[in-house]
Amino acid sequence: MSAVRPDAALLGALSQLNAEYARAIDDDRLEDWPAFFDDECLYTITSADNQRRGQRVGLVYADSKGMLHDRVAALREANIYERQTYRHIVGLPAVLGSAGGLARSETPFLVVRIMRDGRMDLFATGRYLDCLVETAGALRFRERVVVCDGSRVDTLLAIPL
Amino acid sequence: MSAVRPDAALLGALSQLNAEYARAIDDDRLEDWPAFFDDECLYTITSADNQRRGQRVGLVYADSKGMLHDRVAALREANIYERQTYRHIVGLPAVLGSAGGLARSETPFLVVRIMRDGRMDLFATGRYLDCLVETAGALRFRERVVVCDGSRVDTLLAIPL
Amino acid sequence: MSAVRPDAALLGALSQLNAEYARAIDDDRLEDWPAFFDDECLYTITSADNQRRGQRVGLVYADSKGMLHDRVAALREANIYERQTYRHIVGLPAVLGSAGGLARSETPFLVVRIMRDGRMDLFATGRYLDCLVETAGALRFRERVVVCDGSRVDTLLAIPL
Repeated sequence: MSAVRPDAALLGALSQLNAEYARAIDDDRLEDWPAFFDDECLYTITSADNQRRGQRVGLVYADSKGMLHDRVAALREANIYERQTYRHIVGLPAVLGSAGGLARSETPFLVVRIMRDGRMDLFATGRYLDCLVETAGALRFRERVVVCDGSRVDTLLAIPL
Repeated sequence: MSAVRPDAALLGALSQLNAEYARAIDDDRLEDWPAFFDDECLYTITSADNQRRGQRVGLVYADSKGMLHDRVAALREANIYERQTYRHIVGLPAVLGSAGGLARSETPFLVVRIMRDGRMDLFATGRYLDCLVETAGALRFRERVVVCDGSRVDTLLAIPL
Repeated sequence: MSAVRPDAALLGALSQLNAEYARAIDDDRLEDWPAFFDDECLYTITSADNQRRGQRVGLVYADSKGMLHDRVAALREANIYERQTYRHIVGLPAVLGSAGGLARSETPFLVVRIMRDGRMDLFATGRYLDCLVETAGALRFRERVVVCDGSRVDTLLAIPL
């Protein structure tokens, strides 16, 4: 409950990883996105309602790097005329624990969508439930479960979150 | 004015404390909320206008842990049919100083409200003015003054901020 | 692509600098704003569209501390009846590299505008592209390029971003 001082190096690496991850998406460098994950990985997008009911099926489910690459390819195919951009604002990460070379963390996020005419709206809020692994000096996602607060997640298929 | 390098361990602990605090509220674990405070504590919610006028009475005023527990009990009583959720996005904390085992910091926040039908709106923005104390290896709030930017804070009584 | 562990002290100083910078603006201490910059400095506000086209002219362009002071003086002159306030939420900074006493970083931001009657709206989102220098133990901006996501940046002249 009360905050024990976390490993400053881990917190720094976690902060940097989250910042880089958000940049890659917002810069539309989707092809760089799979590299944030470990070779053995799980990525899902689900809603808070589903998460509460223990249903982790969600809207997006990928349990290999190949599936992440496939997803990017499908997005590129579908969104030729994409006219909006996105801005992730990632909040402060909470380190939940670490053991055996793995760390667990939770990090809140907010995504703003910016239309071509300059209008902005709140696109999504939620939290990342992450399991992290360090390989070759770099922190990567073994698991990233994206839990959206809203239930209207069917509109979220345009970009990775 | 210019940023002197703060104690990395303190900044890490402050970041973690803020992240944990926001998680507890957004997860609706209100019963865990008083534990973020020191036994000797002050928690208030006020508006920027009141703060400028030197009026720190505010909308919510609690100067003991017992009062924090009472507040949670009252919220539980009142909000049986609570149908919205909240997402705190806490910005980067600024360490203002530390001496004699106490630290002072200021941290901005934004709260999004998510309705049951998925609609989202900006619920509140503001800043936390904190006095922190470390007891038994954990950082806790001796004082958390929540200064809301808007003046419509009468609607803010649903949750702790 | 993948996050290499950044220097924890640099990341801490960067976080603190961004937090202090945003505070100064949101507290309406604009006169403190030039002190966040090195004597040799560049500050511009531009749009993502302009940035993509390689046009860094932008809406605001200042390449000396004197020009920053002039800008504050002009804002004070113009905005006698300023009736709104702003809240910057600065996201997690990404350290892009450091060499020869200079560091490069990118940091996302979101600004909420709060009207006198309490209404809030999304005012701007974007990213800071920074070049930082440490002088006399304090980190300062050698260069801060503010890239706004939207194209409606003509309305952004009210405050520094």
